[in-house]
Amino acid sequence: MIKDVLAGDVRAIAKMISRAEAAKPEDRDALAEVFRHAGKAHVIGLTGVPGSGKSTLAGVLGLEIRKSGRTVGIVAIDPSSPFSGGAILGDRLRMTGLAGDDGVFIRSMATRGAMGGLARASLEAVDVLDAAGFDIVLIETVGVGQDEVDIVQAAHTVVVVSAPGLGDEIQAIKAGVLEIADIHVVSKSDRADAAATAADIRGMLGLGPTRHEDDWQVPVVPTSAEAGEGIEDLVAAMDAHRKHLSDTGAIEQRRRDIIGMRVLKTAEDIIRKDFKGNREQLAVLIDRVMAREIPPREAAERLLESFKKS
Amino acid sequence: MIKDVLAGDVRAIAKMISRAEAAKPEDRDALAEVFRHAGKAHVIGLTGVPGSGKSTLAGVLGLEIRKSGRTVGIVAIDPSSPFSGGAILGDRLRMTGLAGDDGVFIRSMATRGAMGGLARASLEAVDVLDAAGFDIVLIETVGVGQDEVDIVQAAHTVVVVSAPGLGDEIQAIKAGVLEIADIHVVSKSDRADAAATAADIRGMLGLGPTRHEDDWQVPVVPTSAEAGEGIEDLVAAMDAHRKHLSDTGAIEQRRRDIIGMRVLKTAEDIIRKDFKGNREQLAVLIDRVMAREIPPREAAERLLESFKKS
Repeated sequence: MIKDVLAGDVRAIAKMISRAEAAKPEDRDALAEVFRHAGKAHVIGLTGVPGSGKSTLAGVLGLEIRKSGRTVGIVAIDPSSPFSGGAILGDRLRMTGLAGDDGVFIRSMATRGAMGGLARASLEAVDVLDAAGFDIVLIETVGVGQDEVDIVQAAHTVVVVSAPGLGDEIQAIKAGVLEIADIHVVSKSDRADAAATAADIRGMLGLGPTRHEDDWQVPVVPTSAEAGEGIEDLVAAMDAHRKHLSDTGAIEQRRRDIIGMRVLKTAEDIIRKDFKGNREQLAVLIDRVMAREIPPREAAERLLESFKKS
Repeated sequence: MIKDVLAGDVRAIAKMISRAEAAKPEDRDALAEVFRHAGKAHVIGLTGVPGSGKSTLAGVLGLEIRKSGRTVGIVAIDPSSPFSGGAILGDRLRMTGLAGDDGVFIRSMATRGAMGGLARASLEAVDVLDAAGFDIVLIETVGVGQDEVDIVQAAHTVVVVSAPGLGDEIQAIKAGVLEIADIHVVSKSDRADAAATAADIRGMLGLGPTRHEDDWQVPVVPTSAEAGEGIEDLVAAMDAHRKHLSDTGAIEQRRRDIIGMRVLKTAEDIIRKDFKGNREQLAVLIDRVMAREIPPREAAERLLESFKKS
């Protein structure tokens, strides 16, 4: 099956991503093998607040990347139910004209609620698409939520989408992702108030800390998915950022940061599963916390202690 | 200082919550002592998608709870920058007429990006307000994001706010929190389309799995913060849910679930800090992952191994 994934077989890719989601012990070697073959794709994180139009942009961007002759894999992180799962964004994307093209693969990951592993599974899905030879892998997440912001930062190039005319509450939330952008997009640029949104973002750039310690000038790209405007510019900006990362050598530090984050997220996932497999001891500790004999921290430390002996 | 917290001293409460956020080893005993004195408050989780009007509702709800003679603490989880911190919601709430009332304490927690501990710190903040004697503690989070949904579920009663007339993208996101509601609120009930939103939610209730294994009938409460309508009904529904939990004994299982989640989140936080304190070993492992000699999972397992020996 690894061979089929490496050859770009669509069914094998889909199955391997499902294995990443299921996270069964017997699939670990296969996923490790996938990881060994990954590392060539340009990984792009695409995020924005609800209503920013980033899902639409992802579809249009996919088409534009295809026009340049390159292949693209899209991993959409679904803000769906922690109980029922779901694949809303993926279904929506399939309707954008990308269906039936072998150079495109779209997968939406269901969020899993408290006992997650979403970050680990999503980044393994990126590995699968990378190993399968897609030139560009897009990770699309909603720009709200700690895990979601972490995931999108596991990209070489982070694109943050803002739309004109959103409400106050949305604007407040937007603050949380603006600073992680390597490229800003102002969507719906056909609207009259889009210029003001772009000016706001330009005004913010250079204020306060960003993650850019090198000399990359963060561009602000106006786009209109409906009018098909600015999408070429966005692809050009993505390519320029990639070139900048490799010319300056900044790509190495970014790769290290991403791997450090992945290792941590994976460790959290291991701990979580170990807990689930250790219900008896957990029940005893919960009893003691319920009686307020010990605080949650002490219970956590004891569980980690027991992990040590396993 | 513990004595001052227990006596409800505002400055001591604020300082203790800052200690929960800072998470320094020397404050652990104090926070453990706070935990020992917590456990009396009715903890309410309030959540909803951006634009649902939940921040406004939190303020109005605070006033209504005060009218019933009870005191209320509010912990607002801020969707602000992982880099710069911030306290937007808290500032907004302070303008609702609750300022200067000793029976109300509002604190907004800044999200901290990847190296978080947000859930642990927020729930310790709830402990502080609980131990300080507030009758009701409200946790307000945006209803998007895995951590954020986890946090709001660490409440005895979960209130999910929906607004009429939000866009498609928001509706899709909404699906992720609808099922965790013990009480549904439809805000902006003065709008003509509010009745349809309420009908949609009623239609959804009874479909698919919810977390209600007991016989609680999830109510749908229309409210208008501006017209001051339905807020009394919401307080009555919260009180009825609390009574239901204690009459049926369901409160015990809910407390166990909450503590189980807290222990896990705290363990994750410990692991995260241990990683940060162990940079040398991490750097060596990252080098090996960078060279694709080992996958992230193996690096994570080795780091956990080294945690065992510490």
